[in-house]
Amino acid sequence: MKVKRYNKKSDYTYTLGTYPTLELLQFKPELVIKVLLNSEGIKSDGISEIQQICADKNILCEVDDRTIQKLGYKENTYAVGVFKKFKSGLSHANHVVLVNPRNMGNIGTIVRTMVGFGVEDLAIIRPAADIFDPKVVRSAMGALFNLRFQYFDTIDDYLVKFSSDSTETKRNFYPLMLDGAKSIKEVTFENPWGLVFGNEGAGLPADYQKIGQTVFIPHSNKIDSLNLSTAASIALWSATSN
Amino acid sequence: MKVKRYNKKSDYTYTLGTYPTLELLQFKPELVIKVLLNSEGIKSDGISEIQQICADKNILCEVDDRTIQKLGYKENTYAVGVFKKFKSGLSHANHVVLVNPRNMGNIGTIVRTMVGFGVEDLAIIRPAADIFDPKVVRSAMGALFNLRFQYFDTIDDYLVKFSSDSTETKRNFYPLMLDGAKSIKEVTFENPWGLVFGNEGAGLPADYQKIGQTVFIPHSNKIDSLNLSTAASIALWSATSN
Repeated sequence: MKVKRYNKKSDYTYTLGTYPTLELLQFKPELVIKVLLNSEGIKSDGISEIQQICADKNILCEVDDRTIQKLGYKENTYAVGVFKKFKSGLSHANHVVLVNPRNMGNIGTIVRTMVGFGVEDLAIIRPAADIFDPKVVRSAMGALFNLRFQYFDTIDDYLVKFSSDSTETKRNFYPLMLDGAKSIKEVTFENPWGLVFGNEGAGLPADYQKIGQTVFIPHSNKIDSLNLSTAASIALWSATSN
Repeated sequence: MKVKRYNKKSDYTYTLGTYPTLELLQFKPELVIKVLLNSEGIKSDGISEIQQICADKNILCEVDDRTIQKLGYKENTYAVGVFKKFKSGLSHANHVVLVNPRNMGNIGTIVRTMVGFGVEDLAIIRPAADIFDPKVVRSAMGALFNLRFQYFDTIDDYLVKFSSDSTETKRNFYPLMLDGAKSIKEVTFENPWGLVFGNEGAGLPADYQKIGQTVFIPHSNKIDSLNLSTAASIALWSATSN
């Protein structure tokens, strides 16, 4: 199989770099199609480890500088892990809901922060960037392999399914809005919760007020807003360190 | 003057986009060399505002689609504000210290978060990315114009100047380290403080333990570390919401 540069329609994607490739091999070995190595990195510790794991798990692993050069965004990509895209429904634990996210780096960073704080369910409301784009995979730094995620065409499609958890407890939604009703310092996040974030440009439409307790993160008027991934970091930190 | 694509050695740089250009005109009008507009955006609200301010302040403002196309990273850049680079020493208020930061987007995002939380002094230890690169200017979203910053060749050069503030009070440093001695939840940040962060790849060298109370942000072992701007967001939030 010849690996081509990522395309939204293809049924595989890939990690770029040693660390995310190791994470892939550890958490989703069953999805790996093959691993490509750069001859320049062949003596580094991480690459030896990758070779060892591939040998143990019977995964194809080959030196292919040309393909890596074609796929890599950066110089010095020593390993590429080609893997099948996967689907995964959401659990009834706490959720993050991203409404129309566009920036791939932000999505990856948020995934990494979520998994770091034990929040492993992500709902994404379309239109939205593709979570399997290698730019997202890269900025998630392997955290994608510990995430459950699901796309929904509308917020209502999501709410119909997840407003209540399996034991019929109501889920508590906290839409983050610049004009939210309560400062995050005064909010107690009640389980199971859903933190809801709008996109980088527009934030959430006003009618998201209806779905729960709107929250703002106080900041000076010298900035227009916090970066989306900054807001998500602080909200995730606050909601998980009660 | 013909505006060329940014070069580290040039004495000017530029904002890309309407919002950062408005911030530039508001906070640093004396530095503006000229403003370029894209003919496609000429009827939008933000652009009218830019034209008005330029007229009031007697700043050159011209339609120049070709130059914008050359400079812009993205489609739909409606305004470019060309401005002289500036120097600014640090005050004796609370500081952020970035040691060898490399990623432009991270630096800009951290600057935006700092200014949002009222922390307006940034020390940068070389080697480091260029704070005037348009990628930093863009991701700071105008916050750069409310920041004091200073580059230092070594951490010692910085410490000699800023270990004590003007009233001879000792500055309290909190190096963020994966193996920090105290969880951020248990730290009380004493003014004047300095939050110290290593770079994206390596973190801080072990000898930074000597300069203050090392701090870690607890996270699951499913991730290797938090993203630098995530760690900075949470540390800034914690240090300013005591």
